[in-house]
Amino acid sequence: MKKVSTPQHPSARERRDAGQTMKVAVFVKPGRIALQEKPIPTVGPRDALLRVTTTTICGTDIHILKGEYPVAPGLTVGHEPVGVIEELGAAVTGYEIGQRVIAGAITPCGQCHSCLDGTHSQCGGRAMGGWRLGNTIDGCQAEFVLIPDAQANLAPIPDHLTDEQVLMCPDIMSTGFGGAESGHIRIGDTVVVFAQGPIGLCATVGAKLAGATRIFTVDALPERLEMSRRLGADVTLNFKETDPVAAILEATGGRGVDVAIEALGTQPTFESCLRVLRPGGVLSSLGVYSGKLTLPLDAFAAGLGDHTIATTLCPGGKERMRRLMNVLASERADLRPLVTHRFKLEDIEKAYDLFANQRDGVLKIAVTP
Amino acid sequence: MKKVSTPQHPSARERRDAGQTMKVAVFVKPGRIALQEKPIPTVGPRDALLRVTTTTICGTDIHILKGEYPVAPGLTVGHEPVGVIEELGAAVTGYEIGQRVIAGAITPCGQCHSCLDGTHSQCGGRAMGGWRLGNTIDGCQAEFVLIPDAQANLAPIPDHLTDEQVLMCPDIMSTGFGGAESGHIRIGDTVVVFAQGPIGLCATVGAKLAGATRIFTVDALPERLEMSRRLGADVTLNFKETDPVAAILEATGGRGVDVAIEALGTQPTFESCLRVLRPGGVLSSLGVYSGKLTLPLDAFAAGLGDHTIATTLCPGGKERMRRLMNVLASERADLRPLVTHRFKLEDIEKAYDLFANQRDGVLKIAVTP
Amino acid sequence: MKKVSTPQHPSARERRDAGQTMKVAVFVKPGRIALQEKPIPTVGPRDALLRVTTTTICGTDIHILKGEYPVAPGLTVGHEPVGVIEELGAAVTGYEIGQRVIAGAITPCGQCHSCLDGTHSQCGGRAMGGWRLGNTIDGCQAEFVLIPDAQANLAPIPDHLTDEQVLMCPDIMSTGFGGAESGHIRIGDTVVVFAQGPIGLCATVGAKLAGATRIFTVDALPERLEMSRRLGADVTLNFKETDPVAAILEATGGRGVDVAIEALGTQPTFESCLRVLRPGGVLSSLGVYSGKLTLPLDAFAAGLGDHTIATTLCPGGKERMRRLMNVLASERADLRPLVTHRFKLEDIEKAYDLFANQRDGVLKIAVTP
Amino acid sequence: MKKVSTPQHPSARERRDAGQTMKVAVFVKPGRIALQEKPIPTVGPRDALLRVTTTTICGTDIHILKGEYPVAPGLTVGHEPVGVIEELGAAVTGYEIGQRVIAGAITPCGQCHSCLDGTHSQCGGRAMGGWRLGNTIDGCQAEFVLIPDAQANLAPIPDHLTDEQVLMCPDIMSTGFGGAESGHIRIGDTVVVFAQGPIGLCATVGAKLAGATRIFTVDALPERLEMSRRLGADVTLNFKETDPVAAILEATGGRGVDVAIEALGTQPTFESCLRVLRPGGVLSSLGVYSGKLTLPLDAFAAGLGDHTIATTLCPGGKERMRRLMNVLASERADLRPLVTHRFKLEDIEKAYDLFANQRDGVLKIAVTP
Repeated sequence: MKKVSTPQHPSARERRDAGQTMKVAVFVKPGRIALQEKPIPTVGPRDALLRVTTTTICGTDIHILKGEYPVAPGLTVGHEPVGVIEELGAAVTGYEIGQRVIAGAITPCGQCHSCLDGTHSQCGGRAMGGWRLGNTIDGCQAEFVLIPDAQANLAPIPDHLTDEQVLMCPDIMSTGFGGAESGHIRIGDTVVVFAQGPIGLCATVGAKLAGATRIFTVDALPERLEMSRRLGADVTLNFKETDPVAAILEATGGRGVDVAIEALGTQPTFESCLRVLRPGGVLSSLGVYSGKLTLPLDAFAAGLGDHTIATTLCPGGKERMRRLMNVLASERADLRPLVTHRFKLEDIEKAYDLFANQRDGVLKIAVTP
Repeated sequence: MKKVSTPQHPSARERRDAGQTMKVAVFVKPGRIALQEKPIPTVGPRDALLRVTTTTICGTDIHILKGEYPVAPGLTVGHEPVGVIEELGAAVTGYEIGQRVIAGAITPCGQCHSCLDGTHSQCGGRAMGGWRLGNTIDGCQAEFVLIPDAQANLAPIPDHLTDEQVLMCPDIMSTGFGGAESGHIRIGDTVVVFAQGPIGLCATVGAKLAGATRIFTVDALPERLEMSRRLGADVTLNFKETDPVAAILEATGGRGVDVAIEALGTQPTFESCLRVLRPGGVLSSLGVYSGKLTLPLDAFAAGLGDHTIATTLCPGGKERMRRLMNVLASERADLRPLVTHRFKLEDIEKAYDLFANQRDGVLKIAVTP
Repeated sequence: MKKVSTPQHPSARERRDAGQTMKVAVFVKPGRIALQEKPIPTVGPRDALLRVTTTTICGTDIHILKGEYPVAPGLTVGHEPVGVIEELGAAVTGYEIGQRVIAGAITPCGQCHSCLDGTHSQCGGRAMGGWRLGNTIDGCQAEFVLIPDAQANLAPIPDHLTDEQVLMCPDIMSTGFGGAESGHIRIGDTVVVFAQGPIGLCATVGAKLAGATRIFTVDALPERLEMSRRLGADVTLNFKETDPVAAILEATGGRGVDVAIEALGTQPTFESCLRVLRPGGVLSSLGVYSGKLTLPLDAFAAGLGDHTIATTLCPGGKERMRRLMNVLASERADLRPLVTHRFKLEDIEKAYDLFANQRDGVLKIAVTP
Repeated sequence: MKKVSTPQHPSARERRDAGQTMKVAVFVKPGRIALQEKPIPTVGPRDALLRVTTTTICGTDIHILKGEYPVAPGLTVGHEPVGVIEELGAAVTGYEIGQRVIAGAITPCGQCHSCLDGTHSQCGGRAMGGWRLGNTIDGCQAEFVLIPDAQANLAPIPDHLTDEQVLMCPDIMSTGFGGAESGHIRIGDTVVVFAQGPIGLCATVGAKLAGATRIFTVDALPERLEMSRRLGADVTLNFKETDPVAAILEATGGRGVDVAIEALGTQPTFESCLRVLRPGGVLSSLGVYSGKLTLPLDAFAAGLGDHTIATTLCPGGKERMRRLMNVLASERADLRPLVTHRFKLEDIEKAYDLFANQRDGVLKIAVTP
């Protein structure tokens, strides 16, 4: 891997030595994420320090903002880093300072029982254990971020791909594609994706890449449905105008879909997935549910329909990132249209305000420190 | 396949020609299954007529009896046939009159889109479409039964296996083993089976055969737990005495189980399965649920635990039956202890009474016309 | 399924009643396939009689012609039927006379142990047992063809697809796609396809549909490589100009490919597949080998490379055909460019001459009775 | 994990500080492995130093001895360590000095692209890259051994299991079971294992645990066939007395086996596997081949039999070891009978002599430093 020359910045070390701090977006309390200053972290043997060049805000960050997903007050948020290697821990090999890299939102260790068993997202055997950045350790809505278990998680960016091109890899592309993969989509399948927010749109792209030949997508926002069609949907359904369950059953001659992907996390979308799913089909669930989730027993054939319900967090690790960047490098998909807005890190509070309120047709925001 | 000589009976044809009818157990109305007389059926080109030599009553038949699972009044019930071929349709080849055979509870056609896609239980693309005997067509609690799509469904019994040895193959063995298989149990897995009725016991046997090295089983009846241990359980838990969730989490050092099999069909057992399941594990569901089924979102990690929920009806078809009989023929398992009672078809109403009320430690009843 | 009106032809029955025969292409002896007359067949209970509207010649037919693959002298050859239902056996339901249908080259029964176990191509437990048309029973290079086990094999053609659009489904599309599927290609994989004849080209299309993001293809004919690029290849290699093994290893930084598809059936292509395959990768073999086939132990890591070699005949049955037609109907792929020549059945001997000698850039020939 | 008290030894550190060396078995040149002295190694940040308490000699070591598998002269051989943790690298957490552990013969890093993709044995993307001990770095036929990437590879031994009980886990049990697993054995399968040396015997055990209901085993040594039967074989065939291919085809009514496991690495055994394998079946290959390996095209159906050939090195990593020890702890299998001889490390040259010449019915030798 060759060293990538980058525009001159004072190094993290120089800034630390000069007693300087860095800007970070911190969860203060429910309802408030604020820009603050923190010391620039120092690397342990298995870490890498990245200078963040681009990052973004995730729907999960909004759950954190609203206090719906609890994190420790004072935590730096953000889990979608694009950056440049500033410092490498003593045990990390094969990388160079200055290399452009991404890391997944999920940063598995690769060496615990769960990881060695292929369940990297649940690292350490704990539910969501692989999700550390912006959850259990400081995240990347910051000038610098420490990547844990860097050996397993730093993925070099091909030279000809820009930051914005790969910005979706760490989370929404991996999650959305994961939904298609967990659905075990086969060539010739009919698929539906309920909700066409950023993750649902990526699920649509993933379903097409995996061989689905008829893709229904469902949302209420015309611009999202239009983006959905642009990214691969064959039939878009606005649930404010049409009953999507009836429409899909009719369009499939009563057969239903082979795979139904849930990309929102609500009772109605989950339930609709089951109602359009053929016996023997797979409900691939990506949503984060809250409150109560009930299985409609009629659609579920009382448990006798040979249905499978698969949930997927967000596959991480550098091999996953490499594969996703392959998709972009080969131009099999182009996710740049998802970046609808751009903000400076200094203005991240405004970015949160825009994103949390879904104003101005926002899909994803590129944030640059 | 050699012809098996059997004790002399008047043939179905002779009896039909003589204007005789046959005894059958008929669903009359909720609360009543009664012995009645019906004409002996004639075979269509794809059918076979079996003289039933042994059959049994299933938990599902009790649902029918109670009106919880609706079937047409007048339908002959029963879906677990062991018998002898009396007549073969014109399009059925490779069999001989007089052969001892079984057919699965599920009788797939093998030739529809669902079957050709490997989803035989959902034959015809309809939920539970493969379940015809005693559901949508006359069943086998009768002197004779018509097997549809006989070419795909008649499975010759190895000579040295008795009727009672193979009596569990058509339904509970196939279902219970299916639960282990859908859980994708691997060598070295820790597994729990909630409920040790006949299907749960078969799931325990299947889990052991599939390589589970630690099997917890849960029930409230000491005799079922004892049978469970005899058939392969390592740790039995009486939920009236112990909280099984706490006990399993403690015994696994908080890790939980790799696969949790639900074999009853209730909210508490389904929920407990999720509560003891490790992130990334499989909940393999065999139960028939009624009322309402809710996913406990804490145990389900809000949908982010990489959990899979798989449901399994009951794999059918003659290849499945052949494989299950292999298990018995090789003495890898012996399910004869499950037959705790024996009745004549004439006395089937008494058998239903015993079985529906779970009296006298009953597990399965052999019914012989 | 609605009845499709077709131009008026005398029916098979009328022609049979009038004592007329039909034109068929018959294997006479090695080196000779000739147009002859045969009686129009009558249907058994599980058969359907098709009036062939379009068919084609397969590379396998050339093996038959040359005596390299033995069939009985007098057999009608051809296994890629597009046609119209003329007559239906008594046991076949759900179809109508006059419907446009295809059947796969492989016509599984769906009801034997192998089929019920999902190994339809090896129907009856015999190697290649599912390949009957033009192999063990009369084929479809004829005015009429009998389709065995019609219930499992007749696949209605969507109205808006022409004969030539679906002409590749019965064999080369199913085979080529099968190569991609047996390779278990995942999104982001690097794949090579050795040989870009009709099957190799379909494997290229299948690899792309399954998510491969970098596809190398290898052949010696510039026009095939050009077609390959048009159908999805990212890098084409002419092995007369370049050592493909060296080129692929260099282009992948020594890593090799994830899946190597062999689509010719020779020692050099098979061996090259292993030489570019990464440890843990899959060699998906489609070729028909003759003579001797040796595993290069260095590339095979002496058997310790966790390699998999998977062979695929040609998935058949009406569900497979439905899925392949989905691909065409959704315009995910267009295989019409593969039809480079057209002949009348009367001129089939000339068509064989052209195809056997690979003249005039021929890829596939549409033959119309 | 509690600290296990062990009999008092001078620590590695004390011995190093005292300028003492340690005894090791070294590959000198083809034909000679000799006991020598080497410095006691010091740990890097990701390493652990084990005091070896028991180890054994593998068939692969004999290939090394004979010069058939090249390693660097001066290398310490041996890759099956049972021992006690003496020292831990700075980056290794969650273990204690004094803990009893094993490590697999294959010691994957868990953090490279191959490992993160699930291909741990081919760590680093190099064929057999995960096999380091006694291959590319010093092995464990020594008083002390350095375990690389200790975090991923140290597997604590349950207290009640002895060294000899777990001695087979690092290599032959993992390899043999891997053969069964790569064969995707299902409940009810018929399986053959060709060769019943230590790995073949473990494959037999693994096949039984995975659900095979009829297991044929083939060897020429009566004591191995007897051991085979004791460990799970249903039918043993001495190929000096019987043609195993003919015998198996006859016993299966011409059907053949579902899975054929090759556990020797020769043309005749590989070829016989294919000759008894049903179409659609899996040849699971464990042998190390030398010279030339040819595919018998008749048995291979010229590449059209939907056969799969899967090769397996030897799954490693601590999660694998944990699972294998589960099998022993649960008494699902007992591999102690495989230890037929015991030697002191001082006498290892004699042990090699015995093992290389397969004298005295030797299966495995426990070597204790």
